Amino acid sequence: MHPVIIVHGGAGDIPDSRVQGKLDGVKAAVLTGNKILQQGGSALDAVEAAVISMENDEYFNAGYGSVLNLCGEVEMEASIMCGKNLDVGAVTLIKEFEHPISIAHKVLTDSPHSLLGGEGAKLFAIQKGFATVPPDSLISDNAKHALEEFLKHREFGRTEIGVKDEGGVGTVGAVAIDSKGNVAVATSTGGMSGKAVGRIGDTPQIGSGTYADNHIGGVSTTGHGESILKYCLAHSIIKLIERGSTAKNATEVAVNAMTSRLNNTAGAITLSATGDVGINFSSKRMAWAFIKEAKLLYGIERDQIFEA
Amino acid sequence: MHPVIIVHGGAGDIPDSRVQGKLDGVKAAVLTGNKILQQGGSALDAVEAAVISMENDEYFNAGYGSVLNLCGEVEMEASIMCGKNLDVGAVTLIKEFEHPISIAHKVLTDSPHSLLGGEGAKLFAIQKGFATVPPDSLISDNAKHALEEFLKHREFGRTEIGVKDEGGVGTVGAVAIDSKGNVAVATSTGGMSGKAVGRIGDTPQIGSGTYADNHIGGVSTTGHGESILKYCLAHSIIKLIERGSTAKNATEVAVNAMTSRLNNTAGAITLSATGDVGINFSSKRMAWAFIKEAKLLYGIERDQIFEA
Repeated sequence: MHPVIIVHGGAGDIPDSRVQGKLDGVKAAVLTGNKILQQGGSALDAVEAAVISMENDEYFNAGYGSVLNLCGEVEMEASIMCGKNLDVGAVTLIKEFEHPISIAHKVLTDSPHSLLGGEGAKLFAIQKGFATVPPDSLISDNAKHALEEFLKHREFGRTEIGVKDEGGVGTVGAVAIDSKGNVAVATSTGGMSGKAVGRIGDTPQIGSGTYADNHIGGVSTTGHGESILKYCLAHSIIKLIERGSTAKNATEVAVNAMTSRLNNTAGAITLSATGDVGINFSSKRMAWAFIKEAKLLYGIERDQIFEA
Repeated sequence: MHPVIIVHGGAGDIPDSRVQGKLDGVKAAVLTGNKILQQGGSALDAVEAAVISMENDEYFNAGYGSVLNLCGEVEMEASIMCGKNLDVGAVTLIKEFEHPISIAHKVLTDSPHSLLGGEGAKLFAIQKGFATVPPDSLISDNAKHALEEFLKHREFGRTEIGVKDEGGVGTVGAVAIDSKGNVAVATSTGGMSGKAVGRIGDTPQIGSGTYADNHIGGVSTTGHGESILKYCLAHSIIKLIERGSTAKNATEVAVNAMTSRLNNTAGAITLSATGDVGINFSSKRMAWAFIKEAKLLYGIERDQIFEA
């Protein structure tokens, strides 16, 4: 099997000022993940590394640069899934750690449970040796500005970044297949600007933000979290592929069906078990990049494909 | 449309000493929900009322009588879904309230979000007028005994109640269709004995513990939570019905496929949009009851159907 990796940097009404930073970020992330795959590393390690790259980058709404809840705090969530045995690790309501995706990966490998939240997730992370950081160190100027803008109207947008254009932040995700044919998916987010304290979105919910099954493929989603979870968007795409759809067609059909039923936008990246690629978004923009057969392709506008 | 309602009181290795209490409890719950439907009430109100009846009953692992985490605390979770518009309300990591399902219903009607956890869920509940109760008032002798038994071996069972027979507690759920043809589903649980602090299971995850869609039907699941969420059991059953399976066949196929793939047991109750009933469990027992066309049927063993 030739390894394949695809990443996204969030679907939404991304402002022009954030386009270049996002394109640079998804290219850097996909290269980081691909390096691991090319060295014979696992799909799980590759998607974690790609997501870490974007958690470090303030152009994305995950890790440093996460958007703020109504109290001005960062509350992050992340999930990772192994398509071989359907193992899951996920965390939610995480405040004091740089890389929620790494804690999620540790839940997958070291916990009898799949999803840990709040104080319990913090206790687990500390027990496993993750260092806490001051919560304020995760807050970017862009995230502060986005909350200020939200507080002027207090209306949630049609995606997590809002119709009112609040800084072009976005959930991040990665899907990979390694040389052994194992599929893995990782997704990480700060949620939506101005969310209530304690709000949990689609990202840690398996079948909504993330799904992986070696027999079928893998999906990571982004967009209006409450709509994605009501529709089980990732699992809906997986079930279409299981029935014979291509990754491309399944992703397009499910994203459009969710948008039509719930009147909110989303995006998804998909790999079938054979490495076919699906990319679709009903939002204005979604940053994505993939590497397949030594070619790096990327884009952010509809029907746009650049080759690096 | 003739209203239909079905409830379950948890799948697992239920000890003989708990069989009669569970049968009495599911019959009382289904009668409570049915009364609302017969008076022209909504499916949402009916499933909430049925679940409240079981949250009050120490024979079930929800509300009073919830099992305890490793620190000896109750941490509950619940979800409710409306099949008309796919609206969702859910809560997790709830400690000080008698009826998590009622807070979940309030999230559905009053919050821009679908799932609230921990302190944020508590803040929301207090703002909406729910009274807190002392956490110890939710702890039953049976739950204390179950934790003591767990601490002797510290091995999670193949369902939430364990292979070691720790008191026969169980997640509860209800699925109803009202006279307008609206489908609703509610599920509530205390999780698994000896779970880590902060563990979130399948119950609040939409598509795992709960799913409702007027076009297809409704499902509530119970059993080994981590396996149910990895398999997206409720959504898997829904997708089989969407493709033409009967409620009975879809429930059997998905429960058995999950058990075969993940080597843990579960159960589910299902109504199709036309009111066909599906009941299946791979565990030793699952208490269930339904009322359709003025008949109350119930059971707890495989292939057992009593008429009240």
